[in-house]
Amino acid sequence: MKKKNKKVNAAILIIGNEILSGRTKDKNVAFIANWLNIKCGISVKEVRIIPDVEKVIVKNIITLSKTFNYVFTTGGIGPTHDDITAQSIAKAFKLKYEFHNEAFRILENYYGKKRFNDGRKKMAKMPKGAKLIYNPSSAAPGFIVKNVFSLPGVPSILNSMIENCKKYLVGGLKIHSKTINLFTVESNISKKLGIIQKKNKKHVEIGSYPFFRLGKIGVSIVSRSTSTTKLKKVHKELLTLAYSKKIKILKI
Amino acid sequence: MKKKNKKVNAAILIIGNEILSGRTKDKNVAFIANWLNIKCGISVKEVRIIPDVEKVIVKNIITLSKTFNYVFTTGGIGPTHDDITAQSIAKAFKLKYEFHNEAFRILENYYGKKRFNDGRKKMAKMPKGAKLIYNPSSAAPGFIVKNVFSLPGVPSILNSMIENCKKYLVGGLKIHSKTINLFTVESNISKKLGIIQKKNKKHVEIGSYPFFRLGKIGVSIVSRSTSTTKLKKVHKELLTLAYSKKIKILKI
Repeated sequence: MKKKNKKVNAAILIIGNEILSGRTKDKNVAFIANWLNIKCGISVKEVRIIPDVEKVIVKNIITLSKTFNYVFTTGGIGPTHDDITAQSIAKAFKLKYEFHNEAFRILENYYGKKRFNDGRKKMAKMPKGAKLIYNPSSAAPGFIVKNVFSLPGVPSILNSMIENCKKYLVGGLKIHSKTINLFTVESNISKKLGIIQKKNKKHVEIGSYPFFRLGKIGVSIVSRSTSTTKLKKVHKELLTLAYSKKIKILKI
Repeated sequence: MKKKNKKVNAAILIIGNEILSGRTKDKNVAFIANWLNIKCGISVKEVRIIPDVEKVIVKNIITLSKTFNYVFTTGGIGPTHDDITAQSIAKAFKLKYEFHNEAFRILENYYGKKRFNDGRKKMAKMPKGAKLIYNPSSAAPGFIVKNVFSLPGVPSILNSMIENCKKYLVGGLKIHSKTINLFTVESNISKKLGIIQKKNKKHVEIGSYPFFRLGKIGVSIVSRSTSTTKLKKVHKELLTLAYSKKIKILKI
């Protein structure tokens, strides 16, 4: 993977009625966001979950691909009638939707000529010029068109494929993070925390997240920055804040 | 809750850097979507996850509140510097951001006058004219402005508050669903399934979702409709499809 000395961002587009109805809990957002963050130095700046409706997919692909460096879609690339991601992306970019020769060969080999029925063939149809994302677990490839990376919705299959995206990505500055867990409530430290954030807002982003652990209430303070030096400075200030208020720190 | 004899929809707006970074797995989307579906007959049509950035929140509130009957936001209503949902919604609707008298009293009672510091007072600041969503677990209320319902991000607190939204919602036609779990692969049934969906597309939406259970691969076919009669008809057609292909059905 190439690297740029600047910030690179991405959006995730989850396509599927089953997530919107609440029937299925999404597992892909956290996985992709972590992978992009840690492995590629790419920050996810927006996630959208939308239904299997062509005009909605087309509209979102157009908007997100213009707004962010990369877009990752999940879902809708299987063999059934509700899998319409590939044809929708073709429409969004005004490309032909046609058989991809290599994808066709991969799937024909996997299923065997006799069992390679229409549903299975459908998984080889992609926007013209798509690059393949190989699938080591169930053959059917994902694909890349312009800055849009299309992956399947089944988490275990997606997880097995994600490393194959890396060579097509230009990563950015790595975002480092440091967490300090305090046994206190947010409203006890919010004022001083705000002052620390204000002072360091150019380089460090500080988030505050309540937790319940070991039967006690606490707050995780997460600092994130592309600079480890600035991060250490903020961490020291947070420790000083904790000591000054006699707050216990949870060691993990 | 009042009921309308038509379809009612909603969007969910998850506000929080911790979800976008992958640090925290979202649990609120499935909970809210299920509650709206089952208890209110309201379908979630879009979810967005966005960062704690005022101009991004403002833009999304404006867009989503115009597009959908209801918008549910989660996160950003606590006492810390990164909690900016209330002030952003005020800006989106060009309303004053000021102390809500009743919210102020609730919080002052909860903390006691002495411990009612600036961070805690911040949780009583809301867009002018907001209606409160009472919080039985940690006092700080959510609020409603126009068609936007703002809830906290901590799942256990959100869950304890959601029933208090009901009296302000006008529900729609209940969406019924029926699931059949088949021990087969999608690409074995995709063609016939597509024909069944096409024939019934006016009234029933059919989704197909692979699963792994008891060491075997299968497909859950989920049909959804506001009409139980149409749903039964589709279910019969799906059973016929399974029998014709000698596919085992998983009984659960």
